[in-house]
This record gives sequence, C-alpha cells and structure tokens, in this order.
Amino acid sequence: MGSPAGTGTGTGLINGMMGRNNIFWHECAVGRGDRQRLLKQKGCVVWITGLSGSGKSTLACTLDHELHSRGKLTYVLDGDNLRHGLNRDLGFSAHDRTENIRRVGEVAKLFADAGLICIASLISPYRRDRDSCRAILPDASFIEVFLNMPLEVCESRDPKGLYKLARAGKIKGFTGIDDPYEPPLNCEIEIKQEEGACPSPSAMAGQVVSYLEEKGFLED
Amino acid sequence: MGSPAGTGTGTGLINGMMGRNNIFWHECAVGRGDRQRLLKQKGCVVWITGLSGSGKSTLACTLDHELHSRGKLTYVLDGDNLRHGLNRDLGFSAHDRTENIRRVGEVAKLFADAGLICIASLISPYRRDRDSCRAILPDASFIEVFLNMPLEVCESRDPKGLYKLARAGKIKGFTGIDDPYEPPLNCEIEIKQEEGACPSPSAMAGQVVSYLEEKGFLED
Repeated sequence: MGSPAGTGTGTGLINGMMGRNNIFWHECAVGRGDRQRLLKQKGCVVWITGLSGSGKSTLACTLDHELHSRGKLTYVLDGDNLRHGLNRDLGFSAHDRTENIRRVGEVAKLFADAGLICIASLISPYRRDRDSCRAILPDASFIEVFLNMPLEVCESRDPKGLYKLARAGKIKGFTGIDDPYEPPLNCEIEIKQEEGACPSPSAMAGQVVSYLEEKGFLED
Repeated sequence: MGSPAGTGTGTGLINGMMGRNNIFWHECAVGRGDRQRLLKQKGCVVWITGLSGSGKSTLACTLDHELHSRGKLTYVLDGDNLRHGLNRDLGFSAHDRTENIRRVGEVAKLFADAGLICIASLISPYRRDRDSCRAILPDASFIEVFLNMPLEVCESRDPKGLYKLARAGKIKGFTGIDDPYEPPLNCEIEIKQEEGACPSPSAMAGQVVSYLEEKGFLED
C-alpha cells in the first residue's frame, strides 16, 4: 500500500498520541513495482458501471478470460458476490450503498497495489461514489468503463427478473426505474450500441484490452 | 470466489425474491486453479497473531521479501495500514475490533482466491475472531502463526511507545495490559524464544517458508 500523505516511509505515529488514533504505518521492503515486474503487468482497476442487465458481469468475465489467456493475473470483484462476504452487513439504504462502493473501491485499490488487474463490476449509479474510488487510486490506474446500454434493452433482457419486480413496485429504489443512474462525465471507456446493435461480449472485452495495451498496463 | 453453499454455479437468486435479498451469484470462467497454475503457487492466508511488539510486522515483511525473492506473489495486509483505508470507519470498541478482523479475514480470503500468498498481520487477540476467519477459508489454506513472545519482551521493545501509554493509563483496553490476549489452541505454526533468545527475523520467516514448502503452497 502507498503510505498516506505526510507520513513518509517507515513506521510513524499518525494523528497524535491518544485514543483511537494510535495507528502506525508499516512499509514493507517489497513494493508495487517489484510485484509488477514479477507479473509483467501493471496493477490497475477496471471499474465497470452501468444499469442492471447492461452486461457488466458478462463483460467482466469475458475480459477476465481474455486477459488470463494472455498470461495476465486478474481478479473480478463482483458487487453482488461481495454482498455475501465482505459487505454482508450492508443493506440498500443510501448510506449502505455508498459504504458498499467505498469498501469495494478500497479492496480494488489493494488488488491494484498487489499488481493485479482488478475488474470491479457494480451498478455504482452515483457519480460521487465512483469518483471517490477514483480518488484513492494512483494516477491513471482507475479505468472507468461505462456500459451505456439503453434502459429498454436492459429491461427487455431482465436476466434476474428484477425490472419486472421494480415495475410492479415490489422492489423500491431500483436504479433506472425509481432511482437515478448518473452517467460518467469523463470515463476512460464507453461501450455502446452501434447502429442499434449491442456489441458482442468479445467486442466489449476487446475494447478494454486495447485500452490496457495502449496504456501499457499489459507489460511491466 | 467460491460460491456460497447451495447456490451451485452460474447465476441464481439467493434468499428469496424480495427486499434486500435480491442478490445473485456470478461465477466466472477463470477460477482459482487457473490463477494458481499461472502463478505456480497455491493461494493461502498466513495469519500472524501476537502481542503488540511481538514482531508481527517484522515477520510479515521478512516473509514477504523471502517469498518474493523466490518468485512468489505475496501481499501483506497490515492491520494498522488497513485502518487508514478499508477500516477507517472503525474504532476500538469490542464491536469495531471484531468487525475490523472480520473485514481483514474477508479480504484475505479474496487474495487467497486470487492465488496470492496473503500475509495478514494483526494482534487479533480473540480466539473467536481468528476462528471466524479460519472458517471462511477453504481447507488448510488458513495458516495461523502465533508469535509467542513474552509480554516482558514486547513491553521492553515497545516500538510504538504504546505500552508506556497503556501503563500510564493513557490508553484503555490495551492487549496484554488491561485486555486479554487469547493464545491459539491449535495454530499451524508457533514461533517462540529458544533458550531465552528471540529468533532472528530470517529464522522466523524460515520457519513459515518451510511450512509452506512442506505443504505444497509454493508450487501449483
């Protein structure tokens, strides 16, 4: 992990001497650069955002497979899956949704620091939550991928039957129905329909792989 | 990540259809075994527990360095460091301490699933908290290392000056002083003094490396 601003290296006391703030910072001899050289890649976070049914999990898995087949070490952080473990204490209140994203961002940061290409797949509807995750990552290692599929397409797919429930009023605060999705303003990658057709999974993954290649993430 | 019991593979709705439980499970094509073959190692968690000043961070860093020099991918989760990020919302109440350990255990599990040798370094004084972390890891991949150094030794080192503050009553609930440390009952590795002398960092790390080697974690 990079040390927090102002603490320098080595062990030091942060935030004064009393109460809950007796927390030190420990720096290890093996750093991010060492791990990246071992892996022959650069750690980063590919953050896939979009409506339910837009294809986030499909893209995450296809990208995972494509990069792995090139000998790259990846790990998928799936928002739903994490709610069974790390985030199982969180519900769907505004506070809990934000905390959910915050924790995934923090874990993604650790994976990137470990040298992995971390693929995070979450609806993450609010711009400020995504921007908070971006803010904790070192320069240019947060790659926001906006899966920009029309609501009608997502709703017609409805792979989990959730839109149907939301339309029937059986789920409240569902993104796209009665809760907003705030599209990114400056994402690194936008994936959208071309001439009314959705790109294939491998075309979507290819778009991300090309970006990673171009930016040098697939070499050390 | 391994799927929770009973959900099988693929995408499925878990815990019924309503409210906060509309959470699915997504399985990716690239699995733990694939990543382990790529890395030529087996993912696991080396959980270092012991008093403040017992040498946990020193062991973590030395072990990290030793394994990295053998071409193994490792990552250190340091309890103090995580309190600046993932766990920065947590204090030192009984609830928050337990939640702190729970989250580190969940993150360590993800790292092991990603194929890394994850080295977690936390006082983690309570047996039930450590056992909860053990319980979520697949068989034999949670390796508890008890740094069994006498309190007098740890207190005489006092690298952070915390024992002094605790003895002066300026820190409450300090492990070993006015809060208990519960030693492991069945840890995989115990590191202790030999004939009144503390083992060197490389001797401590060597003990863990030998264990990992013997159990096959350093090959795929």
